[in-house]
Amino acid sequence: MSTEQQHREARLTERVVASFDATPDPRLREVMRSLTRHLHDFVREVRLTEREWQQAIAFLTEAGHVTDERRQEFILLSDVLGASMQTVTVNNEAYGDATEATVFGPFFTDGSPAIPLGGDIAGGAAGEPCWVSGTVTDTAGNPVAGARIEVWEADDDGFYDVQYGDDRVAARGHLVTDAAGGFRFWAITPTPYPIPHDGPVGRLLAATGRSPMRASHLHFLVTAPGLRTLVTHIFVRGDALLDSDSVFGVRDSLVKDFARRPPDRPTPDGRDLGGRPWSQVRFDIVLAPANPAAPANP
Amino acid sequence: MSTEQQHREARLTERVVASFDATPDPRLREVMRSLTRHLHDFVREVRLTEREWQQAIAFLTEAGHVTDERRQEFILLSDVLGASMQTVTVNNEAYGDATEATVFGPFFTDGSPAIPLGGDIAGGAAGEPCWVSGTVTDTAGNPVAGARIEVWEADDDGFYDVQYGDDRVAARGHLVTDAAGGFRFWAITPTPYPIPHDGPVGRLLAATGRSPMRASHLHFLVTAPGLRTLVTHIFVRGDALLDSDSVFGVRDSLVKDFARRPPDRPTPDGRDLGGRPWSQVRFDIVLAPANPAAPANP
Repeated sequence: MSTEQQHREARLTERVVASFDATPDPRLREVMRSLTRHLHDFVREVRLTEREWQQAIAFLTEAGHVTDERRQEFILLSDVLGASMQTVTVNNEAYGDATEATVFGPFFTDGSPAIPLGGDIAGGAAGEPCWVSGTVTDTAGNPVAGARIEVWEADDDGFYDVQYGDDRVAARGHLVTDAAGGFRFWAITPTPYPIPHDGPVGRLLAATGRSPMRASHLHFLVTAPGLRTLVTHIFVRGDALLDSDSVFGVRDSLVKDFARRPPDRPTPDGRDLGGRPWSQVRFDIVLAPANPAAPANP
Repeated sequence: MSTEQQHREARLTERVVASFDATPDPRLREVMRSLTRHLHDFVREVRLTEREWQQAIAFLTEAGHVTDERRQEFILLSDVLGASMQTVTVNNEAYGDATEATVFGPFFTDGSPAIPLGGDIAGGAAGEPCWVSGTVTDTAGNPVAGARIEVWEADDDGFYDVQYGDDRVAARGHLVTDAAGGFRFWAITPTPYPIPHDGPVGRLLAATGRSPMRASHLHFLVTAPGLRTLVTHIFVRGDALLDSDSVFGVRDSLVKDFARRPPDRPTPDGRDLGGRPWSQVRFDIVLAPANPAAPANP
């Protein structure tokens, strides 16, 4: 490439960066300058063709037209590019042995049913029963009593209740930890499911040889005063999809042993499951301080 | 930032990059890997907050919903971030004294009227008459006979014909150069106008203290066998907007003297303008080879 060409490209980027100099809000100024530099670096690095630029515009246009109250193609796009997970990562910095965060996903709803400790969140959702228990502690090992735990998951067919198309509430609920920070409840053993893949993001996955499947998981949102809110999942050890989760949500530390139990094995709380097999998992949750004064592992 | 945190962020980016390893098309693989790296670098560099991520999703969603057959908010977004102009720049490498390219814009239409040399493209569009003349040559200085020149522009109110809401065709046309590579026609003196700014891109411009105005310009699309197709504008020297063109289309080499002529000054072709003032500009166009074997100014 000629020196003149390099100068033209670099000058253009600098001119666009400078166009944000008068932005009143310093944070917006910082974000737009950085976005401009990285966007231009991408265009210059790959020598984006005009046809490819048109394809990108058409892709975004279709994503916009597919998106409505029930379908969010831009979140899917962010997810499959790992941008959602990277945002989660930068906003949940490593702190001691605090439990790692992962993506929130689009299926959380406010107003989930209150479930007593030992209760069942399934609410009629189909699936193998799964006994989930553990504790919530801080990074010094102190139990956190009264922590609120929201849990939600897909049913055996891979659907969340909000995808049923009616108003049923199933496979979600919230619990509160006991004085020892303990919690326990019945859920259903997580199973894999695809993210919506009948739109432009699905076509991108197909064109790049990637699967739309998410590794099996159970969602957690844990809140307690003075501690950092944790949004995470637990995954099933042995799941063949752990290395190809379509949204890059898997962390090694979040992969748990879901022990398979035969029908005749007595349940932890004596519940009669009517001769069905079940599973059992332990998840001990460690919450970081809400505003760590200094990183614990600098 | 802790070493563990740095590793988590870097590992995530590498995992996403690697997810494209199986892409059958090598070009798509290259583009997606580069896009991933630059997108992640941006998120990490600005430490994008989850609220900012949500604002970005909402911005793209609204852009998608504003976009229809007549309005293209994603092209506007690309334009105001200079990504359109950077794409033009990388696809029209500097070559000798070849005329520089600039953005195509959304207002070109196929099937413009054929205008004889010396004819008028205004077609009833309001504006001060402007005599445009010049030559088309190659980079060796040879005249290019039979080059096709498409020209189009906004009227005095800042609107292109396609924005009128009816089927009128105005302020556009195509001409063919004569044996000496010459061309000449009447147009209207370009005036400034804003890009559409009643959507999310307009709000972004307002929030960053930027103007939606485009510097006054006249569009050219020049094609000739064996030569690189040129998409460009000419701009009006002295226009106060030259340094703040909202889509970064201005090149110094494309700024031309539009000489103002009083009503009593005889026109070049003897046309009677009915006592109106007029203007006059010269634009000599130099086309690069279609496939330069080697850059002329390495």
